[in-house]
Amino acid sequence: MQTKDKAVVLLSGGLDSATVMAISRDQGYEIYALSFDYGQRHRFELDAARKVAATLGARQHLVLSMDMRSIGGSALTDKRIEVPKSGPDHAGIPVTYVPARNTIFLSYALAWAEVLNAEHIFIGANCVDYSGYPDCRPAFIKAFENLANLATKSAVEGKCHIRIHAPLLTMTKSEIILKGISLGLDYSITHSCYDPDHQGLACGQCDSCILRHEGFVRAGIPDPTRYQRQS
Amino acid sequence: MQTKDKAVVLLSGGLDSATVMAISRDQGYEIYALSFDYGQRHRFELDAARKVAATLGARQHLVLSMDMRSIGGSALTDKRIEVPKSGPDHAGIPVTYVPARNTIFLSYALAWAEVLNAEHIFIGANCVDYSGYPDCRPAFIKAFENLANLATKSAVEGKCHIRIHAPLLTMTKSEIILKGISLGLDYSITHSCYDPDHQGLACGQCDSCILRHEGFVRAGIPDPTRYQRQS
Repeated sequence: MQTKDKAVVLLSGGLDSATVMAISRDQGYEIYALSFDYGQRHRFELDAARKVAATLGARQHLVLSMDMRSIGGSALTDKRIEVPKSGPDHAGIPVTYVPARNTIFLSYALAWAEVLNAEHIFIGANCVDYSGYPDCRPAFIKAFENLANLATKSAVEGKCHIRIHAPLLTMTKSEIILKGISLGLDYSITHSCYDPDHQGLACGQCDSCILRHEGFVRAGIPDPTRYQRQS
Repeated sequence: MQTKDKAVVLLSGGLDSATVMAISRDQGYEIYALSFDYGQRHRFELDAARKVAATLGARQHLVLSMDMRSIGGSALTDKRIEVPKSGPDHAGIPVTYVPARNTIFLSYALAWAEVLNAEHIFIGANCVDYSGYPDCRPAFIKAFENLANLATKSAVEGKCHIRIHAPLLTMTKSEIILKGISLGLDYSITHSCYDPDHQGLACGQCDSCILRHEGFVRAGIPDPTRYQRQS
């Protein structure tokens, strides 16, 4: 690419979205990182997102406040629902699923892309390790891309074609980690735990911690995560 | 209907969304009204939304705060862009268009519908008077319905089928007004002006005021809007 194309990159501060940002940088995009403060229990994610955006040289990092708590329905935003610690249950959709979260995140990314005149949106959706989340599947991503090109002024005027990039869609956690490592990504600045302690140390027991740790083990890479000391 | 089906109704407090709520009530739905505080200049809309929700007997009215101002790009949320007062320009998309607004609104409605186990979402989108807004067209509504049924836990599990109702889609403003009048709707409690004064009186000159007033004239119904005194 001669002139850098702009890309809005959804950045949670977790392992997946940090890898997506490293991939988009490697592909030469000028990065506009977008994070959400949605009343998540694990607010250490946002600190991680800031570190990742700064480290990978995002042109701008926007943190939008949004009010998911009033909608409720997820262990990640509703304090009345416990974060499960018995390992991933592949039989159903976990209670940590946030209703329509990726739909809402992509909608905001689309709004910002339109204002920036950006044609590219990157999201760390993945259908291997999170098979239970409906909005992490290829058909969902495709349907959103279709919607995006009917929803915006510039697309309708034929001035641009929005593309939703989900490069991790069919990768396993260990493949994602190896990709990030090959791009020089330092995973110690990322945060995945759903239920960290007050210092931000990972619990090591929630689904997200378990999938992350297994990923490092399978990739043969030392796990840089700082865990709470187990009693 | 024997048991009332639940419907999430997007309610701005304007003429169109109030009519949609009256239609959904007439069809027997139990109404969950959803409004947004998105830094719009015309915050009197939210007062109107509260009056409409109360008057039409919404079971619940949720007002979500959202941060459209940081994204910018519209005269309705960005104070640096003037609200135009030269009449609707059907040649292009007006600067009062808020990027991806209906996509974002419908995404939140979908999240709430999922938590409520509601299968119905009502929106006042209209492609006659607002032909310039891409996200008010039938193809957009259809694409969102398609997305919705790929995006949520209950739809993917086959437990429900989300329907997006846009009953005003092909109606003119005067037809909308006549429909609302036939359902007993009092339009004096609705607010349409993009640029009201500090008392909430309508300017009479912005696109929204002009379309609204023309609608009453063509419908042969006295316009109940309170306008600013013209100098």
